[in-house]
Amino acid sequence: QGRFWKGPLMSLESDLESILGAKGWIASADSEPWRRDWLNKFGETPLGVARPKSTSEVSKIMALCFAAQVPVVPQGGNTSLTGAAVLSVKGGVILSLSRLNSIEDSDVAGGTIVVGAGVVLSRLHQKLEGSGFMFPMHIGAEGTAQIGGLIATNAGGSHAFRYGMMQDLVFGLEVVLPDGRVWNGMRRVQKDNAGYQLRKIFCGAEGTLGIVTKAVLKLSPEPVQQVTAFLAVATMEAAYRLTTLFRAKAGDFLNALEFVSDTGLGMALDNILDITFPLKQRAPFYLLIEAGTGSLQVPLEEILSGIMETGIEEGHIIDGVLAMSKAQRDSLWRIREEQPEGQRLEGAQLKHDISVPPAYLKKFLDLASAECQSILDGVRINSFGHLGDGNVHYNLSTPVGQEEFFGLDEEFAIRLGRLASELFGSFAAEHGLGHAKVSQADTLRDPLERQLMMNLKLTFDPNGLLNPGVIVSSKIVT
Amino acid sequence: QGRFWKGPLMSLESDLESILGAKGWIASADSEPWRRDWLNKFGETPLGVARPKSTSEVSKIMALCFAAQVPVVPQGGNTSLTGAAVLSVKGGVILSLSRLNSIEDSDVAGGTIVVGAGVVLSRLHQKLEGSGFMFPMHIGAEGTAQIGGLIATNAGGSHAFRYGMMQDLVFGLEVVLPDGRVWNGMRRVQKDNAGYQLRKIFCGAEGTLGIVTKAVLKLSPEPVQQVTAFLAVATMEAAYRLTTLFRAKAGDFLNALEFVSDTGLGMALDNILDITFPLKQRAPFYLLIEAGTGSLQVPLEEILSGIMETGIEEGHIIDGVLAMSKAQRDSLWRIREEQPEGQRLEGAQLKHDISVPPAYLKKFLDLASAECQSILDGVRINSFGHLGDGNVHYNLSTPVGQEEFFGLDEEFAIRLGRLASELFGSFAAEHGLGHAKVSQADTLRDPLERQLMMNLKLTFDPNGLLNPGVIVSSKIVT
Repeated sequence: QGRFWKGPLMSLESDLESILGAKGWIASADSEPWRRDWLNKFGETPLGVARPKSTSEVSKIMALCFAAQVPVVPQGGNTSLTGAAVLSVKGGVILSLSRLNSIEDSDVAGGTIVVGAGVVLSRLHQKLEGSGFMFPMHIGAEGTAQIGGLIATNAGGSHAFRYGMMQDLVFGLEVVLPDGRVWNGMRRVQKDNAGYQLRKIFCGAEGTLGIVTKAVLKLSPEPVQQVTAFLAVATMEAAYRLTTLFRAKAGDFLNALEFVSDTGLGMALDNILDITFPLKQRAPFYLLIEAGTGSLQVPLEEILSGIMETGIEEGHIIDGVLAMSKAQRDSLWRIREEQPEGQRLEGAQLKHDISVPPAYLKKFLDLASAECQSILDGVRINSFGHLGDGNVHYNLSTPVGQEEFFGLDEEFAIRLGRLASELFGSFAAEHGLGHAKVSQADTLRDPLERQLMMNLKLTFDPNGLLNPGVIVSSKIVT
Repeated sequence: QGRFWKGPLMSLESDLESILGAKGWIASADSEPWRRDWLNKFGETPLGVARPKSTSEVSKIMALCFAAQVPVVPQGGNTSLTGAAVLSVKGGVILSLSRLNSIEDSDVAGGTIVVGAGVVLSRLHQKLEGSGFMFPMHIGAEGTAQIGGLIATNAGGSHAFRYGMMQDLVFGLEVVLPDGRVWNGMRRVQKDNAGYQLRKIFCGAEGTLGIVTKAVLKLSPEPVQQVTAFLAVATMEAAYRLTTLFRAKAGDFLNALEFVSDTGLGMALDNILDITFPLKQRAPFYLLIEAGTGSLQVPLEEILSGIMETGIEEGHIIDGVLAMSKAQRDSLWRIREEQPEGQRLEGAQLKHDISVPPAYLKKFLDLASAECQSILDGVRINSFGHLGDGNVHYNLSTPVGQEEFFGLDEEFAIRLGRLASELFGSFAAEHGLGHAKVSQADTLRDPLERQLMMNLKLTFDPNGLLNPGVIVSSKIVT
């Protein structure tokens, strides 16, 4: 676990400082704000934190670190839930992209925008307000997460089943390679089949193949009307029947099809003061459904009310409410978005980010619940997430009266991950592997798949200097 | 250009024949129907044509060819316009995937379908009819093109700007690697961030990294109403203004936003008997606009008529018609779809498959026209294609009275490709590189980009046995 560079350390530090200036180079002693991950589980002490303000500076940093064979981890908003943006080895460089935060809006009318890797997602949303276009990516951490990190982790979020994940929203990229060379793939078109889809390879690579410095993103027309519903349902069968109905009758408009369990609702209500429950009676599950359209001629509220009436007649909806104002809408979304925080305040927890085909969701939840209880009797299950694409955040709290999981973390993760895989799903849906899931991946992945990934890593980064320990676990640095 | 395998040829042939049987192995002498590409420009004589009926047979073929170091080119419907599915070297094996044509429809209600590589696109469309879901990929060759080829070429087509290209529609893949090992990536979920996005890497790789044998495709709700309009416009500014208007007011519903030039219309009317022009007067350009929705409550015709009224009032639409029946709709689409055939019947032609951001389309057409006339005075330009995503099929016919292009092919291609690149576009939008564009790519591509692609090729196929000569040109086989 010691430092493993080969070059002269003092010279690297002073070279970096002279290139980046006092604002651009944070010495190791002052690196604490960048060192640890969001959940405070990972992160070794760096040689320092580089804060370049241009692609050219990133290129110089990479060339110097390459010459000295010092590892580099790129860091955006550092909101990874798998510790993907911090160092697994002491003495590497944390490369913060925060200052690459320019937004060029010249192409908005054409449906694209050019942004620096350090642009915070919510700032991009604000920038586009009123332009007629929007960037349709929404995640809980959007006030902090940056574009470069969203690309590196191939973020999904609540709107992905309509608009796609980051890999579907990236037209062009600028990437600095491990040795400092700059690949300019900043084309602004969807259709570009001039060879391999390099632009897609860097999406989801968690900064292990290159450093994304700039991107061309695809925009979508902004809705001019929007309807948000919150529904109580008794079973997952009912929830699935409703999603099918909503997709069939309002598929052109559905932005979000989220779900929350009563366990999670309870934790949020218990632990967070200003959350309000909008219905008269509690139920096992709740759906948050949002639809939007760019046309004022679409009778959107009527369409959604009609589907809800059918759902009530069929006995699938117990109770429901439509948001009539922005305040009501925000209040409904808070119930969904505060699920992680509500559970965090409850004490020790284990997070699992699973996806299964929506049609298998009920089966997964039934089998998973039985598995979990067999591993630890009384474990409290809070499942919530994205019904539209089958992405479940399957988070566990300790049984009431117990404070820990007795080292069962890995067993839960492996058994849940295996179950998802058996149901044609994924054990790492939208949060990626990071440091947290690499050993699980080694167990759950087909060895051939692992080898293909290792080969890919070595192709772009033969010395294993970029974000070491992430995605593929082996120590490939000698 | 000689044969370059090292193993015992007779043994390979007899081994393949004994595995595949008489139906599954076509000897070299009978290989003519598979040998040449669609445009009859490429294709060397193979050792034979393998027609496996299972993944396991594909695996065995690949292992044998790998052992003998014999090159293999996968072939689907063989509709490539760049010769991507035929051999560039004598004596390799053509691997036809046509018999891998099963469709498993068990997941349709969940929004996915599992299909073999050899399934013809139009058969998939038919299979899904009435299911409430559709597979939203539409290209001219859909009656012949197969899923495996569509994936290998990352097909785009007319609906891509709404629903995405193949890479956006593929959730899972099964791929046989050059040495015969089988990668099972048949997950049925959108969100799968368990490592690098291998499923995306094989999309658009033109069969140079592995053989796609099976796929999980993403479906979309089927429209229950549809409106098709055909509009005459005077200028590309007007066309762009109209696309902006349609996107803003009907962006949720637009499936296709196509354009045709009067030159191309003329050629189609002159050369194809049963095409009819639906308007009263001719104009420089025509738009074909199609919108669809899954809801009967959307006043779709009213929405489109409203936009057209605005377009007429603003002076951007000269004349227009709405299709009122399926026959009328088909008749409008034929004008668009017979553009290539109309021009083919006109004599010698040069095809260019360009994309630029839609906002730059007018600029591209102006500059490109001037360049082309400066290269060959009187050259006839037929530009048509996809306004929605800026994909122009910029096809040239000889000046009237001349029968050839005097060897200017490469100059046209390079200058048009460079122009597209300067306008943030691509010189190979949706047809890929194949054999036809590899040398252009060497001229137009950044050398670093070329090197990254070469590295990628060598990672998956170090001996260069898979579809040699495609995507990266160097002879990497020693």
